[in-house]
Amino acid sequence: MVAGNDSAYPIVALDAMGGDFGPSVVVPGGVAALRERDDLRLALYGDRDAVAAEIAKAGAGDLPIDIVHCSQDIAMGESPASAVRNRPDAPIVRAMRDHKEGLVDAVASAGSTGAMVAASLMLLGRLPGASRPAIATVIPTLERPFLLLDAGANVQNTPGQLLAFARMGRVYSHVILDVPEPRVGLLNIGEEPSKGTELTVEANRLMTGKLEGFVGNVESRGLMLGTVDVVVTDGFTGNMTLKTIEGFGAFLQRAAGMIGGGSEGGAGELLKRMDYAATGGALLLGVAGSVIISHGSSSVRAVTNAVLAGRRLVSRGLTDKIAAVLGEDD
Amino acid sequence: MVAGNDSAYPIVALDAMGGDFGPSVVVPGGVAALRERDDLRLALYGDRDAVAAEIAKAGAGDLPIDIVHCSQDIAMGESPASAVRNRPDAPIVRAMRDHKEGLVDAVASAGSTGAMVAASLMLLGRLPGASRPAIATVIPTLERPFLLLDAGANVQNTPGQLLAFARMGRVYSHVILDVPEPRVGLLNIGEEPSKGTELTVEANRLMTGKLEGFVGNVESRGLMLGTVDVVVTDGFTGNMTLKTIEGFGAFLQRAAGMIGGGSEGGAGELLKRMDYAATGGALLLGVAGSVIISHGSSSVRAVTNAVLAGRRLVSRGLTDKIAAVLGEDD
Repeated sequence: MVAGNDSAYPIVALDAMGGDFGPSVVVPGGVAALRERDDLRLALYGDRDAVAAEIAKAGAGDLPIDIVHCSQDIAMGESPASAVRNRPDAPIVRAMRDHKEGLVDAVASAGSTGAMVAASLMLLGRLPGASRPAIATVIPTLERPFLLLDAGANVQNTPGQLLAFARMGRVYSHVILDVPEPRVGLLNIGEEPSKGTELTVEANRLMTGKLEGFVGNVESRGLMLGTVDVVVTDGFTGNMTLKTIEGFGAFLQRAAGMIGGGSEGGAGELLKRMDYAATGGALLLGVAGSVIISHGSSSVRAVTNAVLAGRRLVSRGLTDKIAAVLGEDD
Repeated sequence: MVAGNDSAYPIVALDAMGGDFGPSVVVPGGVAALRERDDLRLALYGDRDAVAAEIAKAGAGDLPIDIVHCSQDIAMGESPASAVRNRPDAPIVRAMRDHKEGLVDAVASAGSTGAMVAASLMLLGRLPGASRPAIATVIPTLERPFLLLDAGANVQNTPGQLLAFARMGRVYSHVILDVPEPRVGLLNIGEEPSKGTELTVEANRLMTGKLEGFVGNVESRGLMLGTVDVVVTDGFTGNMTLKTIEGFGAFLQRAAGMIGGGSEGGAGELLKRMDYAATGGALLLGVAGSVIISHGSSSVRAVTNAVLAGRRLVSRGLTDKIAAVLGEDD
C-alpha cells in the first residue's frame, strides 16, 4: 500500500511488471517522467527487488517514488476476468484497488489490455451513463493528431454506446488535446447517412442533432489527413483500424531500411513524425477513474509519456468532466 | 451491339464514360492495352462521338476497337438497382447484357461500384454456390502483393459466405497471381480462434479443416508486411481496411511534398512501389461472368491494367475454375 496522497501532486500508479520488457523499461520510463516534472509522484507496483534494482540503476533514489510489492502477476494470454479474480496481488489489481480507495490518482500499465479493462470495470466500475467503456487512442498525422475510439475495449457495440463514446471523445479532445470545438466523425464506408451497417445508420441518426460538433460519417481514407478531431466507431472496427495504422508504421520502418532515406528526409523522417511512442498510451474512458493503457511494446519514452498523460488527465479533471456530459439528453 | 467474338482473342468491354475523367482517360487507357498486346480486342461503350474523337486523338483508328453507342449514363450517386433497371442504354448495362449473350468476354468499368455489382447480379446472375459475390482487390506491399476480399460488394456477411469468399480468393491467387499454394487468413482483431465477433469466431470454426491453405486469423497489423496471400473478411471491414490503406497512399503523397525525398528514395520511392494503379482494378468474384471494377480516380495506366487484367482472367478461365470449387463440401 502506498502512503496515500497528502501532497497536492497527483500520484500515478505504474505497473512495473507490464509490457514486453518489464521493470527494465517501465522503471526508467517512470523515472524520466519524474525528472521532467516535479509536480508528480510515482507508485511502482511489482516485485520489490526487481523494481528497487532498476531505481538504483537509474540513480533515482532521491525521487518521490513508492514501491508497492506485488507477489503475483498476470500473463498476456490469461482470461482477463478470471485473472483479475484469481490474482488479487497482481500489480494491475492492487493498483486499481488502491485507486478506488483514493490512495493513487491514476493507474497506467503496458500489460494486458483485457486485464486492464476487466480490472477497471470490476474494481472501479462504470460512470453513470456509460454502459460500456471505450479505449481512446491518439493517432498522430502529419498535421494535428486525432482521437480514435473505441480502439478495442469492446467487440460489438450499440448505437447508443457509440453516441456515449462520441461525447466522451469530445470532452477528451477539448480538455486534454486543447481543441476548442472538436469535430466528431462516425467512421463508415461512405459519407451518406444511409451507408453502412444497421449500427452505423442508426448511430448516424442518433448523433445527428443530438451531438455537438458532429460532422457526419467519415471514411477511413481521410483519417491520416486529419479531417476531424474525434473518430467514433465500434470496438472491432476501431481495433482493426488502429492495427492497420500501426502496421503502416512497421511497414515504413522496413521500407526505410529497404529503400534508404532512413536518417534524414524520406521514410525515416516520416517515422519520426508518426512515432506512436510520442502519444504515450490510450485512455480507458467511461470508468470511474483514470486509467492509461499502453502498448505492450512500449519504449522508455512511451512509458514516460503514459505517466505524463496520467498526470495531465488528473490535473485537468477529465473523468469528472466526462461524467458531466454522459446521458445528457437520452 | 458489337460484331461478336469470332476471333480467338478475348474482347474486353470497357465503359468509356466511367470514372472521374470519362473518355479522355478511359479511351487512351484501352488503346495502350491494345498496343501492349495483340491478342486482345476492345469494345468501347459510350457516346459514339466522344469516344471516336478520343480514338482519333490517340491515333488508334487502325486498332481492333468496336464502339457501342450508348445514349444513357449512370451517375455516381444514383441508387444502383434502380439505375440498372431504368437505364437500359447505359454503358454498364449494355455491356453486361452483351457479356451475358457472349458477345464480349469481360466487362470493365471505373464507374459506380454499386451499379457494377447490381448489373452483374441482375444481368449475369450468381455462380451456383456463391450466395453473395465479393470484390477481390490486389494490395501491393513492399514484397509480394496480397488479395483482399470482400472489399465492399457487401455490407454484412455470414460465416458461410466468408468460406465461399476464401475459396474464390484462393483460386484467384493461384490462377491469376501464380501463387502455388495460397495461404488464406481470416482478418480479425486477434489470432486466437476465440477472438472477435460472432461472425469471425464462427467463420474461423468453419474454415478450420474445411479450407485448404487456411492459416487462421490474421491481424491487420501484419497486412502490409505480406504475411498471407489471401485475406478474407466481410464487406464492411474489407472496405474500411482498403480505404485505410488507400489513405496511406494519399498521406505518403502529401508527406513526400512536406518532408522532401520525393524524387529519389524516401516517400517518393515508396509511392512508386505502392502505386495502386499498377494493380489495375478489382474483380467481382462469384458472378457468372468476368467483371473488373476500377477505382473512380483511375489513371490511364490503371485503365490499361484493368483491360489487361480482363484479358488475363478470360484467357486463364478464372470464372470456370471458381465455379468448380464453390460448394465443395457444404
